[in-house]
Amino acid sequence: MDIGVLVFDGLTVLDAVGPYEVLSRLPGVSSLRWIGCGSAGSRSAGSAVGAGAVVRDDRDRVGLAVDVAMAEVDPASVDLLVVPGGYGTRPLMKDEAVLSWVRAVHEGSEWTTSVCTGSLVLGAAGLLDGVPATGHWLARDLLASTGAVVVPDRVVREGKIVTAAGVSSGIDMALSLAAWIAGDEAAQSIQLAIEYDPQPPFDAGSPEKAPSVVVDRLRSRVG
Amino acid sequence: MDIGVLVFDGLTVLDAVGPYEVLSRLPGVSSLRWIGCGSAGSRSAGSAVGAGAVVRDDRDRVGLAVDVAMAEVDPASVDLLVVPGGYGTRPLMKDEAVLSWVRAVHEGSEWTTSVCTGSLVLGAAGLLDGVPATGHWLARDLLASTGAVVVPDRVVREGKIVTAAGVSSGIDMALSLAAWIAGDEAAQSIQLAIEYDPQPPFDAGSPEKAPSVVVDRLRSRVG
Repeated sequence: MDIGVLVFDGLTVLDAVGPYEVLSRLPGVSSLRWIGCGSAGSRSAGSAVGAGAVVRDDRDRVGLAVDVAMAEVDPASVDLLVVPGGYGTRPLMKDEAVLSWVRAVHEGSEWTTSVCTGSLVLGAAGLLDGVPATGHWLARDLLASTGAVVVPDRVVREGKIVTAAGVSSGIDMALSLAAWIAGDEAAQSIQLAIEYDPQPPFDAGSPEKAPSVVVDRLRSRVG
Repeated sequence: MDIGVLVFDGLTVLDAVGPYEVLSRLPGVSSLRWIGCGSAGSRSAGSAVGAGAVVRDDRDRVGLAVDVAMAEVDPASVDLLVVPGGYGTRPLMKDEAVLSWVRAVHEGSEWTTSVCTGSLVLGAAGLLDGVPATGHWLARDLLASTGAVVVPDRVVREGKIVTAAGVSSGIDMALSLAAWIAGDEAAQSIQLAIEYDPQPPFDAGSPEKAPSVVVDRLRSRVG
């Protein structure tokens, strides 16, 4: 299995690293590539971020190394695509080079996946028209505007397209993928290896559960 | 608040990125530095990994950008230290330059924290002698050998020292830190922003909960 994680300036780094930490432990992963798109430092779209470059996250506080530029990756060589989210997805939604590459990957992929607002890129590429999908709770309207049938679940699978809700949900998505790909025991083994026995100190991780003052404040910040 | 995350070749990247994604959203963070130690590419200890360098994770499949070399960071300038884990902690446990820097940071820090086998570094630095602490379940014996009183909990706080269990537990630790530092509502707001409403497909995230065949297999692999 050849895994590709699309990375770009303005991504949310946990969206990518959560699934990475799970999927990279799967048996039979022959390659795992951090595939760069966009112009380094510019925060605008393009296709030039390649080997040796670093993409910066949406708060410009952490950098992830790029293995190869998107333009150099044969779409047919990617079996499992992960598209993370972050504000950096907005310019990608209008970048035809990125969208057509994503479409071409999807034609031959075994799995096409996204975390958080990564689903906006799948949607903009036309892959979610009439398809049940999820994404960050603050981007549900925007996701619906791409034609997706928004389902406010943590992980939504429709055939080979798997989308996850906001940021941390990529870990749950990747464990489900691990089970579908390699079986329950392999997934449980990975879960135990990364000691994923979550015990958040609060039960405020979704807009349905968080105090309304907290929900309203975040909504108004994005508004 | 000035946050420092110690990074080195052979770290587990989620150990660092989990807390990052939470702590970087705290109000009042004036700096957040990825502080490099070790010699790039060699996987052995040292003190030369600085700005512009990239550290590679314990499976050599992802690279994180370094902001500054440990040797260039005044220990008194770090308010909150995060030491992630990974096999790369083993050489650090014998690296006096690293251990004395960690001790010096701890003297003036508000919080000294670790995730996974990062607690082995705190222990080797002499900070955990007689102190309740946790770490990855497979490293409990090694942690005890540093003088720590091993508590098999997900997050253990003793004064300003906070240690977390394996890999993914750093997210829970950081949300607790966020609440202690900025209050419950600030922590809940971050939890909602990263949509941390965990729903793992299995309940196998600790050795007490996972099927015994899965536990035994992982244990034998580490031997």
